[in-house]
Amino acid sequence: MALVTIGNSEFDRDTAVTRRTPGVYDAHLSAGWTIIRAVNGGYLLALMGRALGDALPHPDPLSVTAHYLTASVPGPAVIRTEVVRTGRAMSTGTASLVQFADDGSEVERLRVLATYGDLGALPDDVRTTAKPPAIPPYELCLGPDSAPGERPAIPGSTAIADRLNIRLDPATAGWAVGAPSGKGEMRGWFGLADGRDPDPLSLLLTVDALPPTAFEMGLSGWVPTVELTTHIRHRPAPGPLRVAITTRNLAGGFLEEDAEVWDAEDRLVAQSRQLARAVQAG
Amino acid sequence: MALVTIGNSEFDRDTAVTRRTPGVYDAHLSAGWTIIRAVNGGYLLALMGRALGDALPHPDPLSVTAHYLTASVPGPAVIRTEVVRTGRAMSTGTASLVQFADDGSEVERLRVLATYGDLGALPDDVRTTAKPPAIPPYELCLGPDSAPGERPAIPGSTAIADRLNIRLDPATAGWAVGAPSGKGEMRGWFGLADGRDPDPLSLLLTVDALPPTAFEMGLSGWVPTVELTTHIRHRPAPGPLRVAITTRNLAGGFLEEDAEVWDAEDRLVAQSRQLARAVQAG
Repeated sequence: MALVTIGNSEFDRDTAVTRRTPGVYDAHLSAGWTIIRAVNGGYLLALMGRALGDALPHPDPLSVTAHYLTASVPGPAVIRTEVVRTGRAMSTGTASLVQFADDGSEVERLRVLATYGDLGALPDDVRTTAKPPAIPPYELCLGPDSAPGERPAIPGSTAIADRLNIRLDPATAGWAVGAPSGKGEMRGWFGLADGRDPDPLSLLLTVDALPPTAFEMGLSGWVPTVELTTHIRHRPAPGPLRVAITTRNLAGGFLEEDAEVWDAEDRLVAQSRQLARAVQAG
Repeated sequence: MALVTIGNSEFDRDTAVTRRTPGVYDAHLSAGWTIIRAVNGGYLLALMGRALGDALPHPDPLSVTAHYLTASVPGPAVIRTEVVRTGRAMSTGTASLVQFADDGSEVERLRVLATYGDLGALPDDVRTTAKPPAIPPYELCLGPDSAPGERPAIPGSTAIADRLNIRLDPATAGWAVGAPSGKGEMRGWFGLADGRDPDPLSLLLTVDALPPTAFEMGLSGWVPTVELTTHIRHRPAPGPLRVAITTRNLAGGFLEEDAEVWDAEDRLVAQSRQLARAVQAG
């Protein structure tokens, strides 16, 4: 069995970007990271993060904001970046993902504004009151190898499910058996199915990979992301991650999803918040 | 006494922008909104929000992200906007604030990426588990008219203090008398000093107007914002606002500040998160 490491995994191959000219990258949106027909927003974010990591002088995303404009489809895409400012410790840039309509016209999918830095150069101080989420042990959570009646699968063809190893806290998986808790909570263990360890880039995928909290709130429709901001706070240790997502306010057809990602050494490695629309099933 | 309403207040005059050509605006950063020498980040955000409100077809900010690049100074400035996408219910744009160095060269201060919509057109549904912050009654909080020993003033010349009516929860004002609580919390009542009622634009100021939570954590240095994202969730009712800010994770020299703003009718009207650097006093 081949050793899957950071750099040679399916995630790395599918987020590869090829520099065409300075700041402009060719990419191919893989059909492997779709939910029903939509390309996953976290996968797109990782792809954009990779292009920005090449375009900017600093290696690691510190704060990344994406506005989702139109639905991406598997196939070719172009990423255009702009360096906004280069400082000693941080640099800021933008990235735009475009695809092409049948008539050749450009359609923008995603606009990103991000500040990068060097996570390895930060001091070691930690003063946190945040606590890792209370998630049952891995083997007690519900995943792809659970019994059919307990397996939390999103109906429809979800290719991304084969690439992720998500094991949900049973307390937040009621939606899968028609018994949502009513609470705006989603928690679980997260890994890439091929065993690739997490890094700052894959954390951009992780924050948008669990089922929407709206499912546990009893909503059955689509929950498209309007905007997603992720802060990468620490380089993750090897091993499984824990993700906890909370929604406190659903109002006027919009809801926020706050995600925290914790690594195997109990460090808070990422915080994200997204604004999403709750679209009722027609 | 003149009636101060939305449109004729000092806040409105100081956030005025003049369209020079389509999408390009002249502005003047007022010295009235400075903390020591720095122009307040929330005031800058409101100014940018006003330009975007003119450039985009929708009136209200729904999600606004700003990356703070260099320190703004009072004086002339130019805002350049770009319309990224125009949809039926939402539109997305960018804005860049620049000032000019002595040699005439441009220095970018702030880059913004935002999605606008129409808060008045949203459905009335609310399903929230969020609760208004527990803040003592207005008259028991500490403000500009409190006794000198209790008045929570940031040392140095803070012109902005004359324009805001902030009354801090005594439980989060210990820093002002050398006894910080050690907790990453800051809470208080917020209004504009001249009595102008809140609107979505002034909420962009409100989320960055309280003293930094770092003061209550016992840090004495500067806490410059790297990135600030604000979601405007509802049009605020007239009357005083309540603001609660929480920091859970200070690590590697960075901390997040999560703010919630509640209006006089107990509606959660804004949520924001910023990533800031903790710079120790030299």
